[in-house]
Amino acid sequence: MSEKAEYRVEKDSIGAKDVPEDVYYGVQSLRAAENFHITGLNMHPEIINSLAYIKKAAAITNCEINLLDKKIADAIVKACDEILAGQHHEDFIVDPIQGGAGTSINMNANEVIANRAIELLGGQKGDYSIVHPNDHVNCGQSTNDVIPTAGKMTSLRLLQNLKKELLRLHAAFSAKAEEFDHVIKMGRTQMQDAVPIRLGQEFKAYAVAVMRDIRRMDIAMDEMRSLNMGGTAIGTGINADEAYLKRIVPNLSEVSGMDFIQAFDLIDSTQNLDPFVSVSGSIKACAVTLSKIANDLRLMSSGPRAGFHEINLPAKQNGSSIMPGKVNPVIPEVVNQVAFNIIGNDMTITMAAEAGQLELNAFEPIIFYCLFQSIDTLAYAVRTFVDNCVTGITANEERCRYLVENSVGIITAICPHVGYQKAADIAKRAMKSGDSVRELILKEKLMTEAELDQILNPVQMTEPGISGKELLKKD
Amino acid sequence: MSEKAEYRVEKDSIGAKDVPEDVYYGVQSLRAAENFHITGLNMHPEIINSLAYIKKAAAITNCEINLLDKKIADAIVKACDEILAGQHHEDFIVDPIQGGAGTSINMNANEVIANRAIELLGGQKGDYSIVHPNDHVNCGQSTNDVIPTAGKMTSLRLLQNLKKELLRLHAAFSAKAEEFDHVIKMGRTQMQDAVPIRLGQEFKAYAVAVMRDIRRMDIAMDEMRSLNMGGTAIGTGINADEAYLKRIVPNLSEVSGMDFIQAFDLIDSTQNLDPFVSVSGSIKACAVTLSKIANDLRLMSSGPRAGFHEINLPAKQNGSSIMPGKVNPVIPEVVNQVAFNIIGNDMTITMAAEAGQLELNAFEPIIFYCLFQSIDTLAYAVRTFVDNCVTGITANEERCRYLVENSVGIITAICPHVGYQKAADIAKRAMKSGDSVRELILKEKLMTEAELDQILNPVQMTEPGISGKELLKKD
Amino acid sequence: MSEKAEYRVEKDSIGAKDVPEDVYYGVQSLRAAENFHITGLNMHPEIINSLAYIKKAAAITNCEINLLDKKIADAIVKACDEILAGQHHEDFIVDPIQGGAGTSINMNANEVIANRAIELLGGQKGDYSIVHPNDHVNCGQSTNDVIPTAGKMTSLRLLQNLKKELLRLHAAFSAKAEEFDHVIKMGRTQMQDAVPIRLGQEFKAYAVAVMRDIRRMDIAMDEMRSLNMGGTAIGTGINADEAYLKRIVPNLSEVSGMDFIQAFDLIDSTQNLDPFVSVSGSIKACAVTLSKIANDLRLMSSGPRAGFHEINLPAKQNGSSIMPGKVNPVIPEVVNQVAFNIIGNDMTITMAAEAGQLELNAFEPIIFYCLFQSIDTLAYAVRTFVDNCVTGITANEERCRYLVENSVGIITAICPHVGYQKAADIAKRAMKSGDSVRELILKEKLMTEAELDQILNPVQMTEPGISGKELLKKD
Amino acid sequence: MSEKAEYRVEKDSIGAKDVPEDVYYGVQSLRAAENFHITGLNMHPEIINSLAYIKKAAAITNCEINLLDKKIADAIVKACDEILAGQHHEDFIVDPIQGGAGTSINMNANEVIANRAIELLGGQKGDYSIVHPNDHVNCGQSTNDVIPTAGKMTSLRLLQNLKKELLRLHAAFSAKAEEFDHVIKMGRTQMQDAVPIRLGQEFKAYAVAVMRDIRRMDIAMDEMRSLNMGGTAIGTGINADEAYLKRIVPNLSEVSGMDFIQAFDLIDSTQNLDPFVSVSGSIKACAVTLSKIANDLRLMSSGPRAGFHEINLPAKQNGSSIMPGKVNPVIPEVVNQVAFNIIGNDMTITMAAEAGQLELNAFEPIIFYCLFQSIDTLAYAVRTFVDNCVTGITANEERCRYLVENSVGIITAICPHVGYQKAADIAKRAMKSGDSVRELILKEKLMTEAELDQILNPVQMTEPGISGKELLKKD
Repeated sequence: MSEKAEYRVEKDSIGAKDVPEDVYYGVQSLRAAENFHITGLNMHPEIINSLAYIKKAAAITNCEINLLDKKIADAIVKACDEILAGQHHEDFIVDPIQGGAGTSINMNANEVIANRAIELLGGQKGDYSIVHPNDHVNCGQSTNDVIPTAGKMTSLRLLQNLKKELLRLHAAFSAKAEEFDHVIKMGRTQMQDAVPIRLGQEFKAYAVAVMRDIRRMDIAMDEMRSLNMGGTAIGTGINADEAYLKRIVPNLSEVSGMDFIQAFDLIDSTQNLDPFVSVSGSIKACAVTLSKIANDLRLMSSGPRAGFHEINLPAKQNGSSIMPGKVNPVIPEVVNQVAFNIIGNDMTITMAAEAGQLELNAFEPIIFYCLFQSIDTLAYAVRTFVDNCVTGITANEERCRYLVENSVGIITAICPHVGYQKAADIAKRAMKSGDSVRELILKEKLMTEAELDQILNPVQMTEPGISGKELLKKD
Repeated sequence: MSEKAEYRVEKDSIGAKDVPEDVYYGVQSLRAAENFHITGLNMHPEIINSLAYIKKAAAITNCEINLLDKKIADAIVKACDEILAGQHHEDFIVDPIQGGAGTSINMNANEVIANRAIELLGGQKGDYSIVHPNDHVNCGQSTNDVIPTAGKMTSLRLLQNLKKELLRLHAAFSAKAEEFDHVIKMGRTQMQDAVPIRLGQEFKAYAVAVMRDIRRMDIAMDEMRSLNMGGTAIGTGINADEAYLKRIVPNLSEVSGMDFIQAFDLIDSTQNLDPFVSVSGSIKACAVTLSKIANDLRLMSSGPRAGFHEINLPAKQNGSSIMPGKVNPVIPEVVNQVAFNIIGNDMTITMAAEAGQLELNAFEPIIFYCLFQSIDTLAYAVRTFVDNCVTGITANEERCRYLVENSVGIITAICPHVGYQKAADIAKRAMKSGDSVRELILKEKLMTEAELDQILNPVQMTEPGISGKELLKKD
Repeated sequence: MSEKAEYRVEKDSIGAKDVPEDVYYGVQSLRAAENFHITGLNMHPEIINSLAYIKKAAAITNCEINLLDKKIADAIVKACDEILAGQHHEDFIVDPIQGGAGTSINMNANEVIANRAIELLGGQKGDYSIVHPNDHVNCGQSTNDVIPTAGKMTSLRLLQNLKKELLRLHAAFSAKAEEFDHVIKMGRTQMQDAVPIRLGQEFKAYAVAVMRDIRRMDIAMDEMRSLNMGGTAIGTGINADEAYLKRIVPNLSEVSGMDFIQAFDLIDSTQNLDPFVSVSGSIKACAVTLSKIANDLRLMSSGPRAGFHEINLPAKQNGSSIMPGKVNPVIPEVVNQVAFNIIGNDMTITMAAEAGQLELNAFEPIIFYCLFQSIDTLAYAVRTFVDNCVTGITANEERCRYLVENSVGIITAICPHVGYQKAADIAKRAMKSGDSVRELILKEKLMTEAELDQILNPVQMTEPGISGKELLKKD
Repeated sequence: MSEKAEYRVEKDSIGAKDVPEDVYYGVQSLRAAENFHITGLNMHPEIINSLAYIKKAAAITNCEINLLDKKIADAIVKACDEILAGQHHEDFIVDPIQGGAGTSINMNANEVIANRAIELLGGQKGDYSIVHPNDHVNCGQSTNDVIPTAGKMTSLRLLQNLKKELLRLHAAFSAKAEEFDHVIKMGRTQMQDAVPIRLGQEFKAYAVAVMRDIRRMDIAMDEMRSLNMGGTAIGTGINADEAYLKRIVPNLSEVSGMDFIQAFDLIDSTQNLDPFVSVSGSIKACAVTLSKIANDLRLMSSGPRAGFHEINLPAKQNGSSIMPGKVNPVIPEVVNQVAFNIIGNDMTITMAAEAGQLELNAFEPIIFYCLFQSIDTLAYAVRTFVDNCVTGITANEERCRYLVENSVGIITAICPHVGYQKAADIAKRAMKSGDSVRELILKEKLMTEAELDQILNPVQMTEPGISGKELLKKD
């Protein structure tokens, strides 16, 4: 604070307090900032924007139904538009982890908007007789409908961004699936050699899994469209005019350009936060998928000399401060870590949702803090995953083929022709002696070379129906 | 084992081993039972049934496409039907927590069915030249398509049962919502007196929340309908005949009477277990809802003398071994505990799903163990919740009304008429002096008695639009 | 129930109820069993034994201070001894997941012991005028001190068993550390080739990590030694005689042969269950250690042809129903799964402990259910890990050495002599060309063969101080 | 970047890259910052300080053993001291969630220190021939010993701060325990009226529980004192001189003023992160304790008219944007939320620790991010809990006494004198009729007034031994 800083005095139910003269926030924001120094961070900019949308829609609605003078309403709308244009965000001073069900951030918004509107109307900041944070900006609202609504609006926008990144990931995997469609390699189950697969098939499976997660995002987004605006304090709509109640959600949809509906039961919608648990669960399922894929990429690129070495991840930075030339799978590793964090956040969200009591769940702040972090960090992790890893993956075709040809696992294709028991014996002997499966079968005259050429064709082994009994019958 | 017990000798790749002569399981089941003494429990009976459905459908399919003699197929089908009728379950001896992606339980099923089929065909148990566990019972299959399929089939049936119980709970809450619709009581947010609500509204909100969970169950069930049967070892369908591949899922739907589709990508479906994460997430969201409701019931029934005492839960057992006459909310408490367990199980399922590697996730056994427990215990908890608690709840109407009339929270309805600041002053004085809000307003001549009669009508305070400014305007 | 079954009528505060004539449990147990059909399982036998110890110690104490007739006390002690000898466990019929802070299982114990004592005194079951479940068996006690105490006693005994198994695991790893001390292999960080290590060093690190967990078990066990016996209903000791209060814990120590102390603050000890959270946390840390080791063993044994193939795990069962000859790491896999379950249980325990309210935490049943399962399954998993996996591990020495000699990672040892930048250049070229690091250095005349022989000695690379600059200076 | 910004070119194994001329970080930091835009936040300032301590201690050690010129060492030490004085922190540009086991932040430190040292020696930033980030600043070190060490050093300092706050909380509860020692109130179990307790006893129990957590912090801090410095890449100490190995930890203790020991097994200590799991577990147990206490305070202060209203929390901000005069328990609520977040972080830490592979756990960044957040936010939450809540709590003595005198729960004290059955009957009738327990007993002539005066003395009911049978015997 510069030496020239001067103060205005504001009062609330707790008492009077100096507020720096040049700030838009007021006494209630200041108290909250002092009460909650927890993370030292600011609110997510998108929830500030969501609050601006809500206050704007409420002002328009209250004006339409003659509960608010047009002059005041216009000033509020103008102040909200400035916030949506990125201004005044520095006046949102409350910590994202705060007690009180979001009253602090709601009042922070009410005060900033009121003071800016006062200014626009030619008044002095703090002169709430012109525009009052509660009576005008918060008119027809309560923290308890504003904050869940703001949380859903914000989640929805962040989810849309996440979906965009996931679609890019799906495209990247699909492209690799085509690129690697011809690369035969060993499939592995339980870390043991199994039967051949094509590298392209593996990447296609990744693409398919990601698409399933995208579909879950769509369902999650739908959970965020049902708002309790108009429910006011506890969902009964006390102090909300019936006309306001009908128009607020459509107006909010219009000013924000997003699709919302009013919740079927406003009381339920005010006190129950299971929709956030459900959304977090979807993000978690996505995190699980991506972490598994990241693990696979780290396994397949292991080596280069003492590992699988089937694929190469692009080198993005030196891998070690002591081991020269080492390149590490740092991008998949960050995907793993973001996934772990999302899983932890899901637990926090679950506990907070469970802790609601009676007409309200007061623990929205921590839910939003964790949920927004989950969505954002996942979107960022997917972005770097696509750009700095997946698109640059290359295959070591020769190495892949060598491992297939050298394997014992291809015995599986023999099984329908000689029976499990006989096949198991051959496998056991092959592993002991180091002989190839082919050699042993020929030695025992179980099959002819021609038959083996057909059955042990590794490409055919990667599709159904071809290596089954029909194969030989067709001969 | 009685002294007359005799043994047959069976062999597998590990070696020879004595198996009790009179049992249907074989050497592989026995080894697995010895390797995994973890919980000391048996597999869930419904997964045994699911395996019987699968083996039956596979035998029928293999017979249809001439890969299995009709005589053998018939014997297998007969053995499966006996299992489905509840027989031979005691021969499923492997621990539900087992290594190996379910090979142990799959082979346990293969061996029991083979040996029973052998017997039905007049052979001696263990004479696998007649019916072979791998070549015949497991024909066209792999643990890696059988076990995920069995898990999904089982989950689906258990979820249907859970849904039935949730529907009963919804009905019970709805009935109470009607019964208590006229009971005015204080609403509370953050454990502090807020504004009036009707007890029926609270129970309606519970009903609505439960219905949302039921809808999530439907989505969860759909996640369980997509099967990877035919994918065999790693989803490529190795050793699966094309004709088998086309018929196995329809045949499985038919024998089980359940609706299934074949997964779009069998490789993905074999290695990714995120559908179970998603289902567990839905159950968890439901657990959160129910635990919150259980907490509310425990709060509202607190007392009887030193608590809220707004409702009474039916007395189902003595509450204390030392405090005579004490009745405790034991049924809601068990709902809470089941919810906590489900939340923990969700974490286990998440970790296990994340730990999949390459072509398979080997950790299905723990996922199934936890998921089946989550679904079953929730269904049982909901059942006792309905029968032993919700349906017997009664309201203390007088007490509820007294708390409203005595409250300061009704000041909120005054707010639109006198402004937030003035209303806050009155509230503060009321709380300090013990005077009622009504008295203070009259004393200050802020409103007339007639106005107050309208505004402070507690029933009207529980609906929107009536206590807003319009009210006085209407006069 | 056989057709000859007859009933006695018992009464409690809820009313009268038929109880099968031949059972020791009474009306309260029966009601609880009907209210809580959740898991369908029985209480853990060890908590039944713990209750018998407590009731025995209480009877002795009450007799000592003349609150209980010697005849009644003796009969109670005798009944308890029978339970401790394994009798009457089938009469403990309540579900481990039960509402009511354990009143159900406490009353189940009180009723069984009372009825057996009545019988021993020549009375008819149900004639509580002879021995009363509350007034005599429960004398001086409350569920609220008995149940936490029983939980701690049980945990302590189960932890002692777990510790025994962990000591065996430590010994097994230590033996392998010696056996493999000479086996040079590639160390890997982030799945990429790093620098050489000896296989024995890896197993020694496992042994050391397990020993750290064992030490945490000791701390955990100490958390279980502080009991709230004597606190009765809420820790204030209401209805507990001062003499009883002084003697009950020493007497309990004596009858059980375990070391206990009375909690410093009985009120705290009655309502706070953080000691169970702490113990569960220790078990979880152990589970993390073991799961990481299991993962390592699965990685090192991957292959045999397309994986690391550095070690072999003993083959304990057929690995696949479709892939003959496949052997899977089923024992480490079960360790992983038990670890995942423990981590989930830890979450459940945490939530339940957090949910305590005021003078009591009513959620002990789910805490005990999960905690006992965590300890037991970990002990069983460790047992099979030792016996069926670790002790049978063998090393593929040649393969290990080949991977080291073929690696680029040994360039690290060159680094102090030529600088990081130069070394990185050589590494990069080696990886591109396939040349060995040694060849490139000689080609560039950066070092002599003699120098390289010293620096690139892989055994020396596994110890500090030898491959540092000092090495060449010593020359 | 201003238009005057100029660039220097730096090279690493990936290639050449422009680095802004005026910054101390180099090419590797820049790549890492570009690869990992995940949280958008900076590293915790205390881990930057920890790295400065480590680099300083390493330079001193390397100088002592003649591996580093004194001139270079002095410049490095000077650069580190500047960082410790708060300078150059803005040059630490990598995201706290980063792939690569911390190589990015280690190299960020190496580059900043090297460039600042170069400058101090009169060179140009980027001229690594003067001071090299790897060869000089990182000399004798690896990310794999530096980063775990930095994490432990940081945790230790943050834990010391947390402990300080917990001690203040303990003192605050202890003071309230004395202040409220005479306030008789109803104890409640399972939300039902139980038996009397003194408010001071409740606060004393809180103090005792907090002290137990403080003791766990001490154990946790000890887990952080064992460092793997000297282990270098994988704990084998490759490239670490024996003399360095002996001196680095003592030197680090000296420069930092903290007590450290070298880990018993450096390989174990490099790859296993269970100590962080253990520490997080302790913090979680503390969070559970505090959340339970916060819940209690919210319950006891519920009302004011329709709740328990036994205590008053200080009003710290307006409670509602719509309900005038409402004061909410916002400080306890933030404690709850921080606790939920810690519990989620614990899960993340657990998963990350479990995911270690072979010679390293690469997931330290997310562990540190979550662990530091857990410790810091808990310390901040405790601070506001003490200052803005606990110290200002007041008791409503009359209300507390009224609830006791009006209760049925005092019947418990009658129980030893009339038996459980009789007492239960009286309780039941009292609850039905609304009569007091005392009246009913007198009416039935079960006891005299004098006896009842003694037995039903509520203060005596809050201590053992006084209300037991001895009481009447003493007469």
